[in-house]
Amino acid sequence: MSKNYYDVTQWHIGDPYRDIGEVINSIISDVKVNQRELDVEDGGKPGAVIYIPPGDYHLKTQVLIDLSFLKIAGSGHGFTSSSIRYNVPKSKWSELHELWPGGSRIIVDLPDNSEEASAAAFYVCRSGDPRISSVEFSNFCIDGLHFVDDGSNERNPENTYSNGKTGIYVASANDSFSISGMGFVYLEHGLTIYHADALAIHNNFIAECGNCIELRGWGQASKITDNLIGAGFKGYSIYAQNFGGLLVTANNIFPRGASSVHFNGVTRSLVTNNRLHAFYPGMVVLDKNSSENSVSSNHFLHDHEPWAPLQGRDNGLKDTYGLLAINGSRNTIIGNHFSEIIDQKQISPAGAIPIIIRVLAGHENYISNNHIVAVKAEATSSDSCFSAQVEALLTINKADGLKVKTVVIEKRSFGNTVLDSGSETQVEMDKEVNAFRATPVPAKYYMTK
Amino acid sequence: MSKNYYDVTQWHIGDPYRDIGEVINSIISDVKVNQRELDVEDGGKPGAVIYIPPGDYHLKTQVLIDLSFLKIAGSGHGFTSSSIRYNVPKSKWSELHELWPGGSRIIVDLPDNSEEASAAAFYVCRSGDPRISSVEFSNFCIDGLHFVDDGSNERNPENTYSNGKTGIYVASANDSFSISGMGFVYLEHGLTIYHADALAIHNNFIAECGNCIELRGWGQASKITDNLIGAGFKGYSIYAQNFGGLLVTANNIFPRGASSVHFNGVTRSLVTNNRLHAFYPGMVVLDKNSSENSVSSNHFLHDHEPWAPLQGRDNGLKDTYGLLAINGSRNTIIGNHFSEIIDQKQISPAGAIPIIIRVLAGHENYISNNHIVAVKAEATSSDSCFSAQVEALLTINKADGLKVKTVVIEKRSFGNTVLDSGSETQVEMDKEVNAFRATPVPAKYYMTK
Amino acid sequence: MSKNYYDVTQWHIGDPYRDIGEVINSIISDVKVNQRELDVEDGGKPGAVIYIPPGDYHLKTQVLIDLSFLKIAGSGHGFTSSSIRYNVPKSKWSELHELWPGGSRIIVDLPDNSEEASAAAFYVCRSGDPRISSVEFSNFCIDGLHFVDDGSNERNPENTYSNGKTGIYVASANDSFSISGMGFVYLEHGLTIYHADALAIHNNFIAECGNCIELRGWGQASKITDNLIGAGFKGYSIYAQNFGGLLVTANNIFPRGASSVHFNGVTRSLVTNNRLHAFYPGMVVLDKNSSENSVSSNHFLHDHEPWAPLQGRDNGLKDTYGLLAINGSRNTIIGNHFSEIIDQKQISPAGAIPIIIRVLAGHENYISNNHIVAVKAEATSSDSCFSAQVEALLTINKADGLKVKTVVIEKRSFGNTVLDSGSETQVEMDKEVNAFRATPVPAKYYMTK
Repeated sequence: MSKNYYDVTQWHIGDPYRDIGEVINSIISDVKVNQRELDVEDGGKPGAVIYIPPGDYHLKTQVLIDLSFLKIAGSGHGFTSSSIRYNVPKSKWSELHELWPGGSRIIVDLPDNSEEASAAAFYVCRSGDPRISSVEFSNFCIDGLHFVDDGSNERNPENTYSNGKTGIYVASANDSFSISGMGFVYLEHGLTIYHADALAIHNNFIAECGNCIELRGWGQASKITDNLIGAGFKGYSIYAQNFGGLLVTANNIFPRGASSVHFNGVTRSLVTNNRLHAFYPGMVVLDKNSSENSVSSNHFLHDHEPWAPLQGRDNGLKDTYGLLAINGSRNTIIGNHFSEIIDQKQISPAGAIPIIIRVLAGHENYISNNHIVAVKAEATSSDSCFSAQVEALLTINKADGLKVKTVVIEKRSFGNTVLDSGSETQVEMDKEVNAFRATPVPAKYYMTK
Repeated sequence: MSKNYYDVTQWHIGDPYRDIGEVINSIISDVKVNQRELDVEDGGKPGAVIYIPPGDYHLKTQVLIDLSFLKIAGSGHGFTSSSIRYNVPKSKWSELHELWPGGSRIIVDLPDNSEEASAAAFYVCRSGDPRISSVEFSNFCIDGLHFVDDGSNERNPENTYSNGKTGIYVASANDSFSISGMGFVYLEHGLTIYHADALAIHNNFIAECGNCIELRGWGQASKITDNLIGAGFKGYSIYAQNFGGLLVTANNIFPRGASSVHFNGVTRSLVTNNRLHAFYPGMVVLDKNSSENSVSSNHFLHDHEPWAPLQGRDNGLKDTYGLLAINGSRNTIIGNHFSEIIDQKQISPAGAIPIIIRVLAGHENYISNNHIVAVKAEATSSDSCFSAQVEALLTINKADGLKVKTVVIEKRSFGNTVLDSGSETQVEMDKEVNAFRATPVPAKYYMTK
Repeated sequence: MSKNYYDVTQWHIGDPYRDIGEVINSIISDVKVNQRELDVEDGGKPGAVIYIPPGDYHLKTQVLIDLSFLKIAGSGHGFTSSSIRYNVPKSKWSELHELWPGGSRIIVDLPDNSEEASAAAFYVCRSGDPRISSVEFSNFCIDGLHFVDDGSNERNPENTYSNGKTGIYVASANDSFSISGMGFVYLEHGLTIYHADALAIHNNFIAECGNCIELRGWGQASKITDNLIGAGFKGYSIYAQNFGGLLVTANNIFPRGASSVHFNGVTRSLVTNNRLHAFYPGMVVLDKNSSENSVSSNHFLHDHEPWAPLQGRDNGLKDTYGLLAINGSRNTIIGNHFSEIIDQKQISPAGAIPIIIRVLAGHENYISNNHIVAVKAEATSSDSCFSAQVEALLTINKADGLKVKTVVIEKRSFGNTVLDSGSETQVEMDKEVNAFRATPVPAKYYMTK
């Protein structure tokens, strides 16, 4: 093997199957020892690659990364649905081909810990200058293994989405990190990154986690692209805080996150061209004066949870909250498709008219050419997760349309523009201080809503 | 080498150059033998990676994959145009630098077979639970080598796009598969996958195949993103059947497929932000009540085949079929660009007015802000594929505009909305039962159409 | 190691740390020697993979690639900001964790050369047929190390973006090349490719280069997707010439390029769904009759350079040039967001009204549903690059709106359509020969512009 290339199964210190954390930390020490004390023109501190072949590796010691240019790579994102399996009776487990995720799989055996950073499998932190750069994670699996009773009265603790564990936690300002081809499963937090610059989260599988991606603190100029993502009912699929210039595109974000995309003080960013499917309102939230963003060309689907073991949860939001809720100004909301496919009996509060796009506070938002489909559907229930979801997805309801408000602009908001996103009666706002053009309606046909 | 890492050229059973199928099957047997009989908490069945270095590997035995978490990876997608070379006279082959595709190249030497699944290089199937998960194919080439006489009167059998061969055939329900960085060439079917969930087909090169990607049966929550794709004149570039939540985005789909994207009973899916180029009408077809989909921000180009060896074919559809044809309801068609660049003499049926967007049957489709460019062009013919195509692509015709119907809503359809997608005369529909707003036209300038 | 797999650190000729160019050229010779003289049915010329482990490799000899199916792969794109570090006083360098980029890092030690091709680290060229195919570059770093005094009166020569060096230069017609996961830094030209067909430039980090991506000559059917890109103030982030069917999507293009995307005679291509941030006008330029393109769903941000060491530069264009400038016909400009956040005192020419979208010459362009935000901002200055940028990005100015022309169609242009992209006074054009519909304005609220 080449210098700077390490295989965890070939390293002379520790046992990667028993504690891969100890092994990787030992390798990182070795990388440092072999680096020059001071960079010189003819050579710097290029880092290393640590390879994890397919296998089951327990992690009992947190990996601490404090050097740039480290790549950790496996050969398999290894996702499989633990959620489905944990809801199969144990008596039937012996009939199953396999029980656990796989690939290059790290099993997070850290103790539950109330201090989030302590229960991260990979903890990245370096103070001083420059910011830690170009750490890359590629094509392996981080598995939290179990969820636990969190006092929430879940009958099955494996359905709580709680275990205090995090996959990767980046605590200090960072530059040019890359996360690609990874699998994250059964972690309370998949990926938590503070103070990111030029971060790429690309082509990962992050699902059945309490929260999937959290960009915290502040950050800029990054991308979350082309991922399969789906958080638990209490958590975020994608969350960003005080971020500028974030590109969230080409993601397929499936249920059952409390939100699909939640922006908190985020500016000049894009949520475009994503497929978003959720069981609750508040799918995309632009909060805390998130402004000058573009939310365009997305497909929103809101329907009911069809899978019996996880029915009955919610995210606490009413159907009047909006599938897209905006607290901010000068955003652009163009060309989105919304499908609101819900059971009138389950509307909350009872008897209310659901709202699709809602501007809570803000001015000069431009809301144009959004197509809202709203149809009544009978809620269903099934013990089979996949077939229930597929069946629900494929059912095109031909029943009566559902009455909705396509756009509501709350009182304190003004200077907004709403074009071709609903009829005169579907759009509720002060039309003196906001601009409006109704979607034309046919003379002789009454739309099913 | 690590446990669970296999190199086909280092394996002790079989000869990978003579029959890589035998070698891979033997490795798969070894993986199984080494797996625990029953999963336990401290270790599951993590699978393995099988590495195929660059080289030419004949496959005479079908690979059968029936375990999860298997990754098969090479170092080179190896695409080169066999189509161009097969249309160079054999007398000139000795002047060519190379004749065949390359990279980590599997040559499919299976006999032609009328039973499609039998002539697949990779056959994936497992019954029982859970669904087979996280099989990954990465960065190698599957080459069908030859097309054959299929009785269709092709002068050159290498232009038939027929040989009964399939690259990868997934027969049973599957979860979280990944196909990336692959090359597929000269196969009648590149990639055929039944019953997919959370599938990622990303950044591949799938061209000169009879059909490129076929998602059959039913499926959900998947993505086909960032691929270079181009099927033969009889086949599908992308086909999906009874699929919900499919994201088709950022693909560059070049000719000469019979269609670019064909949806059959597909719901709540996206075809957005793709570059689509075709030589025939019916580029994007939403058929069999495909509903609540979004087809937005795409670029459609329809012009004539400029390359002599493949001129004279068609897909059987008339220019009145529509470049985008819809049989379904509540779809969203926003912000697409269409370039219809055709020779008036070749319009079929002769004298007809070509149609760009056509709703055959369906209601409450929302068709808005589509820009249709239609210009007359002389068809050309060249023996050089690349230069002919580039020349045709770059020619901006300044001749007269071509008269087209930008949108036609057939009689049985109602409740549709057409906004800013053509003038009063360019849009044909019953304007009593469908809503319409014409694109404004300048007072003193007559558009070239 | 397998046949056709080469590790530069294991090769018996040359010293990769001293001159990796000599080593790779020697490996390429070996690949050729081992290839069959003539391809036959049972085996072609499959190429090879050359692996570069993490490390610092000087390149003193240009690599010459003239065979198909060669993959060069590393384990780390290794980007870090050299620009920031070169603007830290040398006296403080000893306090820095590291000074240089890393990963699998090639240090370009070629002499500066006025002949561009001679100073390319990787030079790809092959005459004859077929075109050279499927060369792949993956996951390594090409570092030009220094910029040099170019007579431009830069105080710090490391800020000139000049050194005559190119990362990868492809001189002859090529097919199905792939560039992914790479890092390019401190090169005058990152990636220069002539005559490309079916090229994929995907998921790279190309920044702090004079120019990032240049597609020259002519080409077709390619994609530039999902990259992080940012050129120097004199250069192109993305440039394409005489190209048809180019898909530029899902890129995050940050400052400080003279332009973000510059098309020169480009047709039937897409610039969609990108995040574009620039310090100068002329962000996206469709020049030399670039026609039938779609520029849609992008986010444009133009504000001022906040970082002291690079303030005071410009690209020579006035604020009346347009953030999006079009010299061409039948283009589609739909659903873009523009944020123009500038200091009124710095507008050039002084007292002018900035222009956002400008059609210099061309007809039948369709400009619809673009949302233009324009706000006055005080320019700031900081010695800290990252925090200055983040702060500027996150500042939502609540001061007065800035008066702009949202769309200007110059006199020689006609037959264009402008819809919902500005008010009667914000759009300047001959409304007799171009079509216009003003964005509705609220009756009682005056927008901040």
